[in-house]
Amino acid sequence: MAVSEEGRDIFKLTRDWLSVQEVVAAVSSTSCGAISLFIGTTRGDVLEGRKVRGLQYEAYEAMVQSELSRLCRDIRARWPRLTHICVHHRLGWVEVGEASVVMAISSPHRQEGQRAIQYLMDGLKASVPVWKKEVYESDAAAWKENAECKWSRCHGDTTQQH
Amino acid sequence: MAVSEEGRDIFKLTRDWLSVQEVVAAVSSTSCGAISLFIGTTRGDVLEGRKVRGLQYEAYEAMVQSELSRLCRDIRARWPRLTHICVHHRLGWVEVGEASVVMAISSPHRQEGQRAIQYLMDGLKASVPVWKKEVYESDAAAWKENAECKWSRCHGDTTQQH
Repeated sequence: MAVSEEGRDIFKLTRDWLSVQEVVAAVSSTSCGAISLFIGTTRGDVLEGRKVRGLQYEAYEAMVQSELSRLCRDIRARWPRLTHICVHHRLGWVEVGEASVVMAISSPHRQEGQRAIQYLMDGLKASVPVWKKEVYESDAAAWKENAECKWSRCHGDTTQQH
Repeated sequence: MAVSEEGRDIFKLTRDWLSVQEVVAAVSSTSCGAISLFIGTTRGDVLEGRKVRGLQYEAYEAMVQSELSRLCRDIRARWPRLTHICVHHRLGWVEVGEASVVMAISSPHRQEGQRAIQYLMDGLKASVPVWKKEVYESDAAAWKENAECKWSRCHGDTTQQH
């Protein structure tokens, strides 16, 4: 399949299960020899004796798109030869073991794409308004502090009933 | 699904289409928050006026497994917290746009996995005995020099009829 080489930035917020294959297809291009990906998944942590059952994601949806667009402009200024960038992020309930975010970048050669995917994930954590609440098997829940978030304290660490 | 945390190294050489989802499933673990991936795809290059139609891969199969095992031991010594490592590599004919290699590493946190996946791909290019021959639309073909291969000149750049 011939795909345009003009770079596309593709974002999706969804309550559905994330398909890695769909994200790969979104960035695929016959002009590219490399697709760099990252998948963030829900860890089954045990925190202070409380076992995590899943994460509840919320987003300031209107700002997610604009922050991701800004981040992609920044990335393309640093690595001008990147082709397509795609980010799919889950909202709502995400079970332990499932993906909460899948992101991919295609590029003619691998080095720039591999550096850019790290920068993209770091940037998402630092500036894109998505929060997660840990839900424990005890049915207690706590907003998860995002240590990398630069623009607000996000939600605090108040424990609350689920 | 509960998955053992003991690190597994999983390799496959195959003449079949590579499934990214299968590689993701192979490294998935509820103890991990991160899966770093890389996909190498066949670029539709035009080289000296000759358009690439696909790549023909050959491997010294007996050595691929041992070299990948050695590479994984090296990687686990550098980043001891990695969980699973999986590499699927195509052999034979790979059309432009298709994946020739899919690799993934799972880890509790993303930084070590993202560094390790770069190292894994660099190591594969440098020391794993897989060669590729470019096949052009004219039906001519040329073994592709691997500039990163450290242990031999591999095949030369002799152009030959397909």
